[in-house]
Parts: sequence; C-alpha cells; structure tokens
Amino acid sequence: MTSVDLTTIRDAHERIRPHIHRTPIVTCELLNARAGCQLYFKCENLQKAGAFKSRGAVNAVFSLEAADAARGVVTHSSGNHAGALARAAGLRGIPAQIVMPETSPRVKVAAVENYGGEITFCAPNLTARETTAQRLLEETGGTLIHPYDDWRIIAGQATAACEFLEDCPQIDMLLTPVGGGGLLAGSLLAAAAMRPELRVLGGEPAQVDDACRGLAAGHRVSVGTGTSIADGLLTNVGALTFPIIQRSVEAILLASEPGIIRTMHLMMERMKLLIEPSAAVPLAALMESDLDVSGLHVGIILSGGNLDLSRIPVADGTCDH
Amino acid sequence: MTSVDLTTIRDAHERIRPHIHRTPIVTCELLNARAGCQLYFKCENLQKAGAFKSRGAVNAVFSLEAADAARGVVTHSSGNHAGALARAAGLRGIPAQIVMPETSPRVKVAAVENYGGEITFCAPNLTARETTAQRLLEETGGTLIHPYDDWRIIAGQATAACEFLEDCPQIDMLLTPVGGGGLLAGSLLAAAAMRPELRVLGGEPAQVDDACRGLAAGHRVSVGTGTSIADGLLTNVGALTFPIIQRSVEAILLASEPGIIRTMHLMMERMKLLIEPSAAVPLAALMESDLDVSGLHVGIILSGGNLDLSRIPVADGTCDH
Repeated sequence: MTSVDLTTIRDAHERIRPHIHRTPIVTCELLNARAGCQLYFKCENLQKAGAFKSRGAVNAVFSLEAADAARGVVTHSSGNHAGALARAAGLRGIPAQIVMPETSPRVKVAAVENYGGEITFCAPNLTARETTAQRLLEETGGTLIHPYDDWRIIAGQATAACEFLEDCPQIDMLLTPVGGGGLLAGSLLAAAAMRPELRVLGGEPAQVDDACRGLAAGHRVSVGTGTSIADGLLTNVGALTFPIIQRSVEAILLASEPGIIRTMHLMMERMKLLIEPSAAVPLAALMESDLDVSGLHVGIILSGGNLDLSRIPVADGTCDH
Repeated sequence: MTSVDLTTIRDAHERIRPHIHRTPIVTCELLNARAGCQLYFKCENLQKAGAFKSRGAVNAVFSLEAADAARGVVTHSSGNHAGALARAAGLRGIPAQIVMPETSPRVKVAAVENYGGEITFCAPNLTARETTAQRLLEETGGTLIHPYDDWRIIAGQATAACEFLEDCPQIDMLLTPVGGGGLLAGSLLAAAAMRPELRVLGGEPAQVDDACRGLAAGHRVSVGTGTSIADGLLTNVGALTFPIIQRSVEAILLASEPGIIRTMHLMMERMKLLIEPSAAVPLAALMESDLDVSGLHVGIILSGGNLDLSRIPVADGTCDH
C-alpha cells in the first residue's frame, strides 16, 4: 500500500471491525457553554487497549501475509501504540517486540506486559528507539510496524473519523491531537474521501509544536528538547504524515501546559471520562485560540485514556504533582 | 400514581427522553476474565448530572401540574438526587429547595449550585433532613420530591433497566446498587414487565446492609450508625421500595469496603470511566459472593460518576486518603 483512499479506509474498517469497539460519542452542556459551540467527543479512550491506536495496530497486523506474520512484529512507541500492537499481535497469535522509552508511564508498560508483548527498554530519544528496533528486526526477521509512518497504520486510524462522520454527520469541524500525525493524517484522508467540506484541525502542545512550526516553515522541523505533560504527543510529525497534513489541514492550534491540565481536569470532572493529557490537547488549544467557532458543531477525538490514576494533575493547572 | 407498570414506565420514558442521555453500554475483557462471565455496564455515570437520578427527577418534575410546579419542589438528598432535581427544576423554570447533609461531597454541592438549586445544609441524619425539608415545604407550599419513596421517581429510574433490556437483550442477570432502593425497585418492575425471567440482584455495602438484613428479617430494619465509602448508599431502603424488592429480588449481595475500593480502582483504570464508589458496589459484591455466574451475561448499572478527583482512593483497598 502506498496511499490511502476511501476503499483502503473501508477495507481497513472491515478488517478491524471484529477486534475494536465502535466507540460512543458524548456531549456535555457545560463544555458547550464554555466553548461557545456544540462539542461532540468520540471516546477513543474507551477503545480496546484504551486508545485509537488499536485501529491502526489491528489493521497492520491483520494485513500481514502469513509467512511475514509468523516472524512477528517490532515497534518502538512511547506507549499507546505499544499496547495496541502487543494486543493485536496476541489476537493473531504472533510475537510482538516492543521498544519503549524507560520513561514510559507505568500503566502503559503494564498494558504491554498484560497483552504479552516482549519489552526492550531504551533511552527516551528517537535515535535510541530506532537503533534498538533495528537490532530487534535483524534478530527476529520480523516486520516493523511504525507507530505512524506506515500506510496501514494511517488507514486504520482513519476509521475513527470515518465512524465520527457516519454517526455524527452534523459536525462542521473535526479536531484531533497531533503527535506523529497518524490520527490527524488519517482523519484528513477520511474527510477528503467522505466530506471534503469538513474543516479539520490539529491540536498540539505549545511546548512541542513541531507540526505547527513545520507548516510555517514549509518542511518538517525537530522540536528539540521540548516536553509536555501530554506524553503521547512528544514525537515529531512523520515523513508520511506531514505532507498529508501540510496539504489539507486548516490549522494546528497550540495548547499551553496549564491549559492542558485545566481542560483535562474539567473534562474528567464534568464528562466522567478518564482521559490522558494528550486527549485534552485539542479542546485546550481550541479554548486558547482566537478561532471563532460560535454556533458550529465541533467534533473532537478523545485519543486515549491510559494514565496512572495516582497522577491525575490538580485542577489549578500546576504540573508539580 | 400509586404503582408502576409497563405503561407507566413507557410514559415516563417518553416524558424524560428529551432531557436525558440514552447512555452507552460498555464491556471490558479483563473484567470478564476476572468475573468469569460476560459483563455489560450501562454508563449512568455519563448520564445528565452524572447519575441515573436524572431519570426520576425529570420524570417527577415534568409530571407536576402547572399550578403545583409553580410553587417549586423540595427534597433532601445525600447528593445525586439533589443535583438531578435542581437540574430538572431548572429545565422547567421552577425553584428547587435542596436539603443536603453538611457532609456531602464538595462536587455534589457544587453541582446543585451550578444547576441553580437553593441549598439548606443540615446535620447528617435522617431526622434532621426530614425536619428541615418539612419546614421548607410549609414555607414555600412546594411539592416534596422524595429521592426514592415516590412512584414518579421509581418509574423514572425504571427506564434505565428498560433501555438496558432494549439495547442488550442477551443479559441473563441485572445488578444495581441499593441505597434507598429506587433504582433496584424500578429495575425489578421493568424486568417484571419486559422480561420476567431476568434475574435481578442488588449490591449493598456490607457495612450498610439494611436491605439485606431487612429481607432476612421480613421487614425493614435500620442500619444504625454504619458507614461506607459508597456515600450514595448510606440511606435505608424505603417504605415503597422495600416491598417491591422483597417480592422480586433474587438476592442482595454484600461488598466489603476494601473490595469496593479495589473494584472501583480496577474499573476506572481498565474501563477509563470515572465512577463514584457506589457504582463499584454491585461488581465488588458479585466478585466477593459465591454466586456461580460462569458463562452468564450479566448487566450492571453504573449508577453515577460524581466524585472529587482529588479523592480517588488508592488501589490497595485502604480508605485513609
């Protein structure tokens, strides 16, 4: 596969349907009042393995030819892709080698272990991750399933927007978080195929704003040493995903760290959903932007819900907990 | 209204439908494995005002004749009924006088204030609550909307089981928490009308086991000074609800305090749903019971999700936080 169109997305959807949840879409009047628009949240935090990443991972694993599949899959991931790939490999009965930064949240490491993935820890930087994954690929003869720069992954992630448009056709605008860009690129491709007039935007932590700066520069840039409480969004946008985003996204909105924490707290308290910090980024960014959304129907994909319960940040937006 | 049958429940459902969510039903493979059965959770924590109580409160408020409605409603409640009634009164544009124990969780007090209810605090015992409510009734000429001993409330709460049976017809068994008994009595009446063969059970904190002991004694008993982290279930079962429960319930299962906390933590961590302690009681009680549910399809109503985020208990089942 070298690109993604409506047929690819539909095929991916049929392939993954038995193994994923069609997640509910919820609303909250208080948040509507605060945002000045009608908000719809697609609960990928309630997805299998706790994140939208199950969509791409299942699609990739179940797309493999039998002979390739038997040698297993390998990936490096800060967390949710790791758990999702370990689960998908387990469903197909093949091994999964997972390279994880040693700083990964405990709950995400536990998830990979629960699903039977074999973990190799490495230093928390892209070079260490890629080098370690390369070694495992050579040792096992397995297939690399990159967390976002893979057409099978992008097609799988696109199914979330696909369901959103089917179940909630009234949305005028769709917001997703941006880390590696798989979810945003998939959403853009789904929108292009199903609803070309849909406005699609990304939300990114202001402290890790490589996608936003890349758009301004006209090419990918590195975030350097930026960090964020939104641990799922620390990676740079990918080589495959960036051009898709560059071509079709309306804008990337930025969220401050205190804004992410306040929004996450507000969403949890009012919506009764556990979300990880990354999932709060699009709404936090929307609230901090000067975009006029009054009267619009705005869809937001809640990307995941994997966080340590003992580390829920306090409501005043401080990070030192 | 002096009783509840299928027509009453259907009428209540039509009356409240514009003002409540049809809440989703979710599943979790890890919890299935732990419980040895197929579990289905109806997410009343995602209900308007964060609890199933919105069903009964909206039904009661919108059942009032215009002249009665104009004088407002009065109630006493440990929390969720209070917020739900304040919201329902606000929707109809009438005043709500709410008597709350001074020990009510902060988040539940804030909810009543947000919905425009007028709060009168009292000592945390039934006598103080009833005396204070009586005084407010005399002052305002309003209508008492009791949190559970009211047919309009029971009919409203019955709609949760009604939706459960419509959306998930495969369930063999239904579990709800028991406090005043409105949800359990409503569920029993819905089951009797729609699926007489459905097994319906209650879950109660072992430390506040008045419903269980009442069944054994053949009449209502008082719990005395028992307390529990499940703050929604501290009230005694009601005069209207007890006979319904006595006639049709299969059993009341008991949950220990450490079991409630462990189960609540497990459910939040794995299901990504914020639930209040009361909502964990049925599953905790099921896990601690010797009931054989292997192979069964078991429905559980997650009663609510109103809790202080800063007071999520730790996973080892201790209460001292």
